[in-house]
Amino acid sequence: MENDYFSKRATIREFSDKKISQTVLSSILEKAMRAPTCGNMQLYSVVVTREKENKEALSKLHFDQPAAKGADVLLTVCADFNRFSRWCRLGRAEPGYANFHSFMMACTDAVILAQQIATVAETEGLGTCWLGTVNYNAARISELLELPALTVPVAALALGYPAASPEQPERLPVEAWVHNEKYRKDTDGELLALHEEKEEFPANKRFVEENGKQSLAQVFTDIRYPRDVNEAVSESFLSLLRDKGFMKS
Amino acid sequence: MENDYFSKRATIREFSDKKISQTVLSSILEKAMRAPTCGNMQLYSVVVTREKENKEALSKLHFDQPAAKGADVLLTVCADFNRFSRWCRLGRAEPGYANFHSFMMACTDAVILAQQIATVAETEGLGTCWLGTVNYNAARISELLELPALTVPVAALALGYPAASPEQPERLPVEAWVHNEKYRKDTDGELLALHEEKEEFPANKRFVEENGKQSLAQVFTDIRYPRDVNEAVSESFLSLLRDKGFMKS
Repeated sequence: MENDYFSKRATIREFSDKKISQTVLSSILEKAMRAPTCGNMQLYSVVVTREKENKEALSKLHFDQPAAKGADVLLTVCADFNRFSRWCRLGRAEPGYANFHSFMMACTDAVILAQQIATVAETEGLGTCWLGTVNYNAARISELLELPALTVPVAALALGYPAASPEQPERLPVEAWVHNEKYRKDTDGELLALHEEKEEFPANKRFVEENGKQSLAQVFTDIRYPRDVNEAVSESFLSLLRDKGFMKS
Repeated sequence: MENDYFSKRATIREFSDKKISQTVLSSILEKAMRAPTCGNMQLYSVVVTREKENKEALSKLHFDQPAAKGADVLLTVCADFNRFSRWCRLGRAEPGYANFHSFMMACTDAVILAQQIATVAETEGLGTCWLGTVNYNAARISELLELPALTVPVAALALGYPAASPEQPERLPVEAWVHNEKYRKDTDGELLALHEEKEEFPANKRFVEENGKQSLAQVFTDIRYPRDVNEAVSESFLSLLRDKGFMKS
């Protein structure tokens, strides 16, 4: 692994035709399993999608975004208290995990694992893209993958060999999101100054112009992550948590 | 970084007296910032706790577990839609993030960042321990760190230089949590076989004996993660999400 891997990494959304061998994929999963996990319970499961038809069906539920459509392998990482609860019952123990806190434990485990898989994969030469869309169609993804009770998809990764090495997007300066001892109370002026570089980033200025907006923020609120969509997804995701048995108390 | 870092890593709960310099800490945070983030919104913030009094107060909220008490630095990673929403308003854009889906986006961002911080720190010779207790006292942690609206602690890390190199705990075989194309329907016998190594692991057999239980599962359900605690934490955490403005629709 290159020493400056962490500083240089970027998400890959375009993949070459090269296939990921089963050996490479298995080795990545085996290594990633050493990621931290709550109480060593491993409250996650991963569904690997690589067959053509299944990939097309799953990709559709990710709105056929190019990274999903073009990936060799799609991984759906689930918050999973099903396996653990079944194991409890088989050991004459009564599981108490049909609640929101247990979902949070499992969700955290699953996201940690997904990020570890992405890191291991990238350090072995693959490209990865997180598919945030997993939350939008979580119920339909759950049906497609035949997920049981207490199992909810919370992370999705597109994997493949990179077709190009894209430029890194901008990031806020560390000062914008790191606070010493207490959460800092920035004034409006300070907050704007911390976002200046972001607003001036050429790709962002282009977004504003192409979308006929007055500011970069409006691209987010009006187009990319609008309130009505967020509210609809909130409702459907909470309803899935109830259906899967995670809101019983 | 060693090539087999990922396979060999383990959580560190005992730290030496050596201090983490500000240069080392800043460099870790700067590198970790290149972790994936939803729509490049960086929906997180990190509160660094290193002053003695603050560390003692925060450690108490993590039940004074040795890793928290003995750490040189504690990091609290928050799901944060506050900064982004303020920036939206300053850009004449109306943020629509007072909902559960937005919390899930920010929570995912925060957990990804926390895991990236842990990985970078470990590859630079530090030891790390995730403090799952962050969810248990999230409201009091939030008060202590003076977190504003739309900002909820979801991950906490103890950092320091390792005092020892502990043995790795057991893990389930990959087959237990990886599913091909669809979620596999294991029979009870298959599920038990996948847990055999775990049950036979010497430290686990000791837990069962020391606690006077009939099975390893009972150690989890009766002592470590019992139903009544999970239900109480569910209630307090959901109430914090409401107080912080994440459940308005």
